[in-house]
Amino acid sequence: MLDYTTAEGLTIEHMREAHERIKPYINRTPVLRSQYLNDLTGADIYFKCENFQEAGAFKVRGACNAVFGLTDEQARNGVCTHSSGNHALSLSYAAGRRGIPCNVVMPRTAPQAKKDAVKRYGGTITECEPSTTSREASFAEVQARTGGEFVHPYNDPRVIAGQATCSAELLEQVDGPLDAVVAPIGGGGMISGTCLTISNLAPNTKIYAAEPEQADDAYRSFKAGHIIADDAPETIADGLKVPLKENTWHFVSHFVTDIHTASEQEIIDAMKITWKYLRIVMEPSCAPPLATILKNPEVFKGKRVGVIVTGGNVDLDKLPWL
Amino acid sequence: MLDYTTAEGLTIEHMREAHERIKPYINRTPVLRSQYLNDLTGADIYFKCENFQEAGAFKVRGACNAVFGLTDEQARNGVCTHSSGNHALSLSYAAGRRGIPCNVVMPRTAPQAKKDAVKRYGGTITECEPSTTSREASFAEVQARTGGEFVHPYNDPRVIAGQATCSAELLEQVDGPLDAVVAPIGGGGMISGTCLTISNLAPNTKIYAAEPEQADDAYRSFKAGHIIADDAPETIADGLKVPLKENTWHFVSHFVTDIHTASEQEIIDAMKITWKYLRIVMEPSCAPPLATILKNPEVFKGKRVGVIVTGGNVDLDKLPWL
Repeated sequence: MLDYTTAEGLTIEHMREAHERIKPYINRTPVLRSQYLNDLTGADIYFKCENFQEAGAFKVRGACNAVFGLTDEQARNGVCTHSSGNHALSLSYAAGRRGIPCNVVMPRTAPQAKKDAVKRYGGTITECEPSTTSREASFAEVQARTGGEFVHPYNDPRVIAGQATCSAELLEQVDGPLDAVVAPIGGGGMISGTCLTISNLAPNTKIYAAEPEQADDAYRSFKAGHIIADDAPETIADGLKVPLKENTWHFVSHFVTDIHTASEQEIIDAMKITWKYLRIVMEPSCAPPLATILKNPEVFKGKRVGVIVTGGNVDLDKLPWL
Repeated sequence: MLDYTTAEGLTIEHMREAHERIKPYINRTPVLRSQYLNDLTGADIYFKCENFQEAGAFKVRGACNAVFGLTDEQARNGVCTHSSGNHALSLSYAAGRRGIPCNVVMPRTAPQAKKDAVKRYGGTITECEPSTTSREASFAEVQARTGGEFVHPYNDPRVIAGQATCSAELLEQVDGPLDAVVAPIGGGGMISGTCLTISNLAPNTKIYAAEPEQADDAYRSFKAGHIIADDAPETIADGLKVPLKENTWHFVSHFVTDIHTASEQEIIDAMKITWKYLRIVMEPSCAPPLATILKNPEVFKGKRVGVIVTGGNVDLDKLPWL
């Protein structure tokens, strides 16, 4: 196993090692297109559908790389984490496949669908208040009690290397080079993995991040040149509330071309038209890329654009346009 | 071009010719799986996702085979048809790609999403009352006025040969033989194409049809040994209201192992769990196969089962579980 101590030390070999390690436990998700959405945006969009991933989100890539990279000694007390949802259930899935315990701290406001899925995969939930401070306090207690190996949802080089496998597949699945790749940004795990792969394998492809206006800490960090972290911003894109950390800031600050933001209504509209015309069930947190592509035609028109659709765990009884 | 005069005369060569003809205009749709749905049913299910097909439904296969098989002389006045929706917009799509007019008669109660799509593809709609008799009267007027070539939504050997390409792809996409294939049955176009392909290429694979209890004319026909046609049955599965005709009856009566039915609530439940766990947007008309697999575990448990997900054109503002 390669050294995973620092984000700066990650190379494309870490991505390749991760891909080999996790292949038995993940899906090679399809890339879908929609003529209607192409006509609407003026771009040629390739949607990498991680909503069809095991556990319903790309997060299972990083979780599996972390869990299956542990020595038996490291895995003895299982794993633990805090997460607004998809990392929690992905780590539960990975731990379940390896046969070790998984303890997760989740905000009590997390979607019921995600809580149900964590339990289905055998994870144990401790609920906290929906703020960074409450989450960190609850997590410290859980970690001390269980002695589990901490797998951070995004600020962990093992996790970033796992997420990097997604755009490696995307590059193989599209016919010819991409002008740009757009991914949502919350804590920055997916965008960091995207940077690791794209900067090495497709250095002429630009990398854009898309963020809710109401949780635009990454946008403001990017413009300021240092991490700005907000406590508990409100947005329908519940997976994008968390702040950047040093390992993801490394990639965002070095490799991202720009960050665009979208309003809550723009996110909801983009979500609905994706459901309608791409015919996939995706989370609100997946919608900022299409919303920002629609909002910034001068950047994307006439371009071949990859979009990472990050997850599909939704409460079908609470759809935001109804 | 092979002879398409009768359904009895269709061979696997007709399917192969159709596949070559339509490949530039259709998608090779992905096959998806869900561990959760496998655990729930006890079967190993391969969902062939025609909701991701051009124009949102498998019907584009048959429509393209018919439209692109016309001589220039036959195509001179365009094409016309009657349809509850997906054939209407598929024929509009195919005619648009060939650059000929398309006139369609649709019940005024057809989903708005389907009417909008017909217009988007350049088709012209004439509305009728939601009954077989009203549809046929309106259509006679439209056909006389336009002189267009009639492409029946299912009782046309060209259409059946086109639909047959779907299960040919499914067989290539699954790893190893299938014990069964299940498709919804309305007029019988998809099930007939499935019979044509499966009986030739996978003769040990059983073919099941799934139908709403409230529009169970195919089930009753199958048990009686002759076509029973109801006028305007009511069901949420709006694509499955039409009766069998002689060309589809030929395949249903010769090659189908059994027909199972599902109640409206069972259809809605199956639709919702597919959205939730397979994370695809599919129509109510696609849900009877999963509903009947859940309802008849003695038939499907432990089996490798292909399911045709027929289409994904849904009014997102009117979901049946809300």
